[in-house]
Amino acid sequence: MKINADDYRKLNPGERILMGPGPSNVPSRVLQAMAAPCIGHLDPYFLSIMNDVQELLRYLFQTNNPLTIPISGTGSAGMETCLVNLVESGDEVVVCVNGVFGTRMADIVNRIGGKLIRVDAEWGRTIDPEAVQKIVSDCTPKVIAVVHAETSTGVCQPLEDLAHIAHDAGALFLVDTVTSLGGMDVALDRTKIDAAYSGTQKCISCPPGLSPISLSEGAIDALEQRKTPVVSWYLDMSMVRDYWGDERKYHHTAPINMIYGFREALRIIAEESLERRFERHRLNHRALVAGIEIMGLSMLVPESERLPMLNAVCIPDGVDDIKIRKALLNDFDIEIGGGLGEFAGRIWRVGLMGHTSHPRNVLLFLSALETLLKAENFKVQPGALDAAAAVYQER
Amino acid sequence: MKINADDYRKLNPGERILMGPGPSNVPSRVLQAMAAPCIGHLDPYFLSIMNDVQELLRYLFQTNNPLTIPISGTGSAGMETCLVNLVESGDEVVVCVNGVFGTRMADIVNRIGGKLIRVDAEWGRTIDPEAVQKIVSDCTPKVIAVVHAETSTGVCQPLEDLAHIAHDAGALFLVDTVTSLGGMDVALDRTKIDAAYSGTQKCISCPPGLSPISLSEGAIDALEQRKTPVVSWYLDMSMVRDYWGDERKYHHTAPINMIYGFREALRIIAEESLERRFERHRLNHRALVAGIEIMGLSMLVPESERLPMLNAVCIPDGVDDIKIRKALLNDFDIEIGGGLGEFAGRIWRVGLMGHTSHPRNVLLFLSALETLLKAENFKVQPGALDAAAAVYQER
Repeated sequence: MKINADDYRKLNPGERILMGPGPSNVPSRVLQAMAAPCIGHLDPYFLSIMNDVQELLRYLFQTNNPLTIPISGTGSAGMETCLVNLVESGDEVVVCVNGVFGTRMADIVNRIGGKLIRVDAEWGRTIDPEAVQKIVSDCTPKVIAVVHAETSTGVCQPLEDLAHIAHDAGALFLVDTVTSLGGMDVALDRTKIDAAYSGTQKCISCPPGLSPISLSEGAIDALEQRKTPVVSWYLDMSMVRDYWGDERKYHHTAPINMIYGFREALRIIAEESLERRFERHRLNHRALVAGIEIMGLSMLVPESERLPMLNAVCIPDGVDDIKIRKALLNDFDIEIGGGLGEFAGRIWRVGLMGHTSHPRNVLLFLSALETLLKAENFKVQPGALDAAAAVYQER
Repeated sequence: MKINADDYRKLNPGERILMGPGPSNVPSRVLQAMAAPCIGHLDPYFLSIMNDVQELLRYLFQTNNPLTIPISGTGSAGMETCLVNLVESGDEVVVCVNGVFGTRMADIVNRIGGKLIRVDAEWGRTIDPEAVQKIVSDCTPKVIAVVHAETSTGVCQPLEDLAHIAHDAGALFLVDTVTSLGGMDVALDRTKIDAAYSGTQKCISCPPGLSPISLSEGAIDALEQRKTPVVSWYLDMSMVRDYWGDERKYHHTAPINMIYGFREALRIIAEESLERRFERHRLNHRALVAGIEIMGLSMLVPESERLPMLNAVCIPDGVDDIKIRKALLNDFDIEIGGGLGEFAGRIWRVGLMGHTSHPRNVLLFLSALETLLKAENFKVQPGALDAAAAVYQER
C-alpha cells in the first residue's frame, strides 16, 4: 500500500456564505474554541465544561430537565436516541409525516419493532391536529412524534394542540427540533414536550457533530420501566446519563473539541438572549420574503405556516435550478439548498439560521439572485432591496 | 428560565500532556485544520475532502477495501456499527473477552439478539487461539470478534491464528483496532480482517468524535444478504456507504470540521510513513519500560504480550494511586489513566500514543514519577533516565 503524502494539499475550504438547510455559518469564536488544546474527558476542567454545557443547553431548551445533554453524533443520532430509548418492540407509535424527517422517524420506528401508526399531511403543509386526534382515539400510543421545523419544506408545526392530544392519550410527546432550536421558541417545559432532539449546525451555528437532546421526567420513567434493554449500546440513555451526571461513569469518550465549540456557541446564544435571537430570525425572514415576493417569485408554504429560518422558494418555470445554484456558489460563494423528494427541482431552500440570519446576507442573496435570474431572462420585478429595507426600517 | 451569560467564562483548558488511555495530544496542525471555516457537506470542495480521507484511511488500514470511512460517532459507535451491520438476530457470534472492550462487544451482541458465545481469558493476558478453535468446532459462528489492543490492560492480541480459525469456520473476522491503529501494524488485507473499527483520539492523535471503519468484500456480502433491516438507521452501512460513495446520497450531515481535523491527522501519518511511525512507538515504549523497571516497578503484562502504546504499570504496595495521579496532573500537567474493573487501584495506564509518543514525554514522565514516588517514601532505585537514554542510544 503506497501513498504520496504530497498529493494531499493543505486544507483550504474558502469562505462560503451558508444559506442552505444547514450547516449555517459558524462564528469565529466557535471555531477558535474548537482549536483549543484537547484535554482528557475525565479532566476536572473538562468536567466543569460538561456542567456548563448542560446548564446553557437547559436555557436554550427552556427546561429544567436534568437530562439535557448533547449526544455524541449528529442530529439523526439524536432522533434515533429518542426513539430507541422510549420505544420497545410492539409499542404503538404515532408519527406525523409531512416531509423527509417525519419519514425518517417512521423508518426508525419500523426498524426497532415499534407498531407504526402514520398521520400523513401534504408536504409543504402542517399536520392537522384533528387527524391526529382521530387516529389516537383508535389506538394506545406510547409516543406521538412530530417534526417542529420540517427542514425539507420550511413548514412550522404548531405544537400546543398535539401536546394536549398526546398527554390526554397518556402518550409521550416527542419533537424533532433540529432546525427550530436556537432560531424560534422551543419551550420544552411550557409546551410539555417529553423528548426533544436537535442538531448543532442549524440555528445554534456550531459545526455538525453533536445532537442536543432533553428528556422529561415522564420520558425517564418510561426508560426506567422498560422490559427489554435498549437495542443500542452507544445511545442507551441509562448509561449516557451516568456519564454526563455526577457519577461520571465511563461510557464512551466525549468528542472533546466539539464540546468546546458547542459551549462557545451556547455562550453566544446566552449573551444575545433567546428573545433577541428569535426576533432577529423573524425580522430577517420577513425581509427576505418581502424581497422574494416583490421580485415576482413565490413561497411554497402559506404565510401562517412558514418557518423563519428555512425559506422554501418556488423555482419559476423555465429557470434552471442547478444552473442558478451553481452560479450562486461559484460566482458569489453563496450556498443554498435544492428541494428533496417530490420538491427536487421545484424549490430552493434558503436558510437564515443562527449566525447566518443577518441583514447583510438577506441583501446579498436578493442582489445575487436578481442578477442571476436576469441573466436567465426571467422577468424580475424591480424593488427587492427596497422591500427588504422597508422591513428593517419598520423597527 | 434565566441565565447569566457572564457566569460562563472564555474557554481555557490549559495544556496537558496526555499520557492516559486516550485522548492523546493533538498536533497544532490538526487543531488549526478543525478551525477552518465550516462549509456545506455537499460542497464540491468538501466532497473532495471526503475522497482524500477515504484514500488516506485505506493507507492507514493497509487495505484496498472500497468501504473505508469514518463513522460520525466515537470509537464505541464504530464497534456498534460493525456488529449491528454484520449480525442478525439469532446469528452465532464468538466474542473473545480479556478486558473492558471485549466485554462491551459481548453486551452489544446480546442487545441485538445475536447468540453470544464467549471465549474468556484472564484480564492482562492474550486470548488463546486453541480455546477459540475448540469453541468454534462446536458452533457455526457468523462472526468471530476480538480486540487487537485491549486499552483496559495493555495486552496485544496476535491476530494471524484467529484470522485463520475464523476463515476456516466460514466466519467473518472482526477486530477492534481502536488503540492499535496508527501505532502498530494493522494490515487488514494481509491479515484478512473482514471488519475493523477504530477511534481518532488514540494513535491517530485527532480529537475524539469519529470512528474509522473498514469492511471487506465478505463483510459487504453479509450486509447485502441480510434478511432483516439493520436495527440502527444512523449506523446502517448500506445507506452510509451511498453517502460516502460516488452517489453522495444524503443520509446525515457529516461532522465537517471533525473531518477537516481527521484529514490533517491522516496527512501527518502519511508524511511520517507507517513504518517510521510504528518504529517510533516501539522505541519510546522500550525506553519507558526500561526506566520503569530500573526504578523497581513492574509491568502488568508479560513482555511478549505488551502493547507499544499503552503501558500498564503495577502500582507498588503502599503507594496511593489517586494521590500520585492527582500530583502528576496538578504539579506537572501530565495525565495518566487508572485501572478499570478489577485493576482499579492496581495499575496505572501510561499512554504513548501518536503525537504523545515522543522521547521528551518518556523522560519527563519518568522524572516526574520518580520525584513523586520519592516524596511518598517509596524506595526508588536510581538510573531510570539512564536506562531510557540507553534505549535511544542503541539506535
